[in-house]
Amino acid sequence: MGRELELIGRIAALVSDHPSVVEGIGDDAAVLDAPPRQHLVVTADTLVEGVHFELQAGTGWPRTGHSAADVGVKAAAVNLSDMAAMGAVPRWAFLSVAVPRRIEIEFISRFAESLSRTLESYGCLLAGGDTVSSPGPLVVTLTVVGTTDGGKWLSRNGARPGDLVLCSGWLGESAAGLQLIRTPRLARLVPPAVRRRLEARHLRPEPRLMLGRALLREGLATSCIDASDGPATDLAHLAQRSGVKIVLHRGRLPVSRALAVAARVFGSTPLEWILSGGEDFELLWTAPRDMAARSAALAGSILGRKAAIIGEVAEGSGVFLSHAGREVEISFQGYEH
Amino acid sequence: MGRELELIGRIAALVSDHPSVVEGIGDDAAVLDAPPRQHLVVTADTLVEGVHFELQAGTGWPRTGHSAADVGVKAAAVNLSDMAAMGAVPRWAFLSVAVPRRIEIEFISRFAESLSRTLESYGCLLAGGDTVSSPGPLVVTLTVVGTTDGGKWLSRNGARPGDLVLCSGWLGESAAGLQLIRTPRLARLVPPAVRRRLEARHLRPEPRLMLGRALLREGLATSCIDASDGPATDLAHLAQRSGVKIVLHRGRLPVSRALAVAARVFGSTPLEWILSGGEDFELLWTAPRDMAARSAALAGSILGRKAAIIGEVAEGSGVFLSHAGREVEISFQGYEH
Repeated sequence: MGRELELIGRIAALVSDHPSVVEGIGDDAAVLDAPPRQHLVVTADTLVEGVHFELQAGTGWPRTGHSAADVGVKAAAVNLSDMAAMGAVPRWAFLSVAVPRRIEIEFISRFAESLSRTLESYGCLLAGGDTVSSPGPLVVTLTVVGTTDGGKWLSRNGARPGDLVLCSGWLGESAAGLQLIRTPRLARLVPPAVRRRLEARHLRPEPRLMLGRALLREGLATSCIDASDGPATDLAHLAQRSGVKIVLHRGRLPVSRALAVAARVFGSTPLEWILSGGEDFELLWTAPRDMAARSAALAGSILGRKAAIIGEVAEGSGVFLSHAGREVEISFQGYEH
Repeated sequence: MGRELELIGRIAALVSDHPSVVEGIGDDAAVLDAPPRQHLVVTADTLVEGVHFELQAGTGWPRTGHSAADVGVKAAAVNLSDMAAMGAVPRWAFLSVAVPRRIEIEFISRFAESLSRTLESYGCLLAGGDTVSSPGPLVVTLTVVGTTDGGKWLSRNGARPGDLVLCSGWLGESAAGLQLIRTPRLARLVPPAVRRRLEARHLRPEPRLMLGRALLREGLATSCIDASDGPATDLAHLAQRSGVKIVLHRGRLPVSRALAVAARVFGSTPLEWILSGGEDFELLWTAPRDMAARSAALAGSILGRKAAIIGEVAEGSGVFLSHAGREVEISFQGYEH
């Protein structure tokens, strides 16, 4: 019990001191003071060592995996990105972690500090936590409870034929970063600045919370999802829920300079990374044709770079890639963890 | 992805169809319609295979571990018991499960069905869920979001010197049940009815939700905790938070007939199981001396058996066992998973 009590104590020390957390760690449950007349938005995601991340000792470079702090950033970002895709306001987070003996208390401390700092930088409070020991891999589950702005939210089911499809940033960079981390011998051929950028995109994803809320507030999105499994899969979910077909135009998919450089070294085209790479945590959304330019500009005012209009919504089902007059179905060709 | 989509589909089919679950599984997050002007109460607990439960194939007898349905009951009960100890109303639950390859989809289906049925029998809706694959043991995290009745709740910090300590039922039976499951050769010497009763207390715990709410509503508890690690540990937490000392009277600890029979077979006294066994999920609470009889009777009207008055609160710190005029400290001598 000594070790578990110590771990719980370390996490308890990080629980936010904020009037909305009426009871934090130390009682049977947390008590929260929720704003009245709002819907609650709840999401829970689990990350498993060896599946969703590999650990590296320390934060040295070249990177061979996630540091303790990286795992904290990732656990926060995965959940906050779901909140972003709903246009919701994340408020409180609850951490559950199953810890193998081989992992030191200091590691969990650094992880939890990074998690709580990342959450707080997006206005979300660590409000509770629990640790148990495990004979298996490190398993982190974070549950985030948020609220809606004025009883509205973005969902996956509002895309209509004629809408255009938008994307908030470079896709495929996270997958390229993962490839660089996994194959250090090839990665050495990539310029260090490019390598660091792509690795950071994988290790330190940024949820697009401001954008999601702005799209909702301005009424500039008919549906929205976050890019977690690659657009071939994410947009297939969105198309299914909306009962529509989505056509992406190959020539309109934005390719970052860093991605192009890495693709040349690996002797591949960036397209696979872009469509099926996953974990970019950009937002993918639809907007009526006559609002798409405003919607793209709104993203620009927040992220410093206009959103790309990458495709359109049609009658039918599935996700297709269009190129040189031909359409190929790519539904669910996603990233498998 | 086929297996994960199938698993998510099975769980999605169990998500409650209820007006308060505005969006269930299928979007980036669940959207809930919370009653206005109430505090939220949130708890999350993780169960790890090999630590908190052992699996047995099927539901045959003699039992060698938890069936799929038992794991569902336990995951629900552990969390609902926390809600009971707060006097809170559990409303929505979110399931995250990390599943090793060797576990069949049917197993997870039976587990999730049992979980959702148990939750619903206590008025709580399964409102979301997520499954990921894992190279390690089965790991189940359940987060329950509840509300308070009229802005009040039971906490661990209200015990005052002079209060009496009450307990809602037989302690130690769950630990004895676990012992029977682990040592089937000795267990064969225990009468089958006793064996089944003790095993059921371990495998199918019942959270005391009605009691917790009634104690809160009637103002008949100054503090409350659920018996999850054994009273030596649970009451040590309560004493610490309240800044008091708790003295348990050995002669007043209730010993069930089944526990006494099992203790004779194992050649031990029931005391160790009672004080340090854990996982009974009874409520332990304090009440002012002049209200203790009414508090005990209230439990009787709900559970069919009056609560036992097992000790008292004094100035000081720690948990002590008093017997024949001597006091021995037993703080934190709890069940280690």
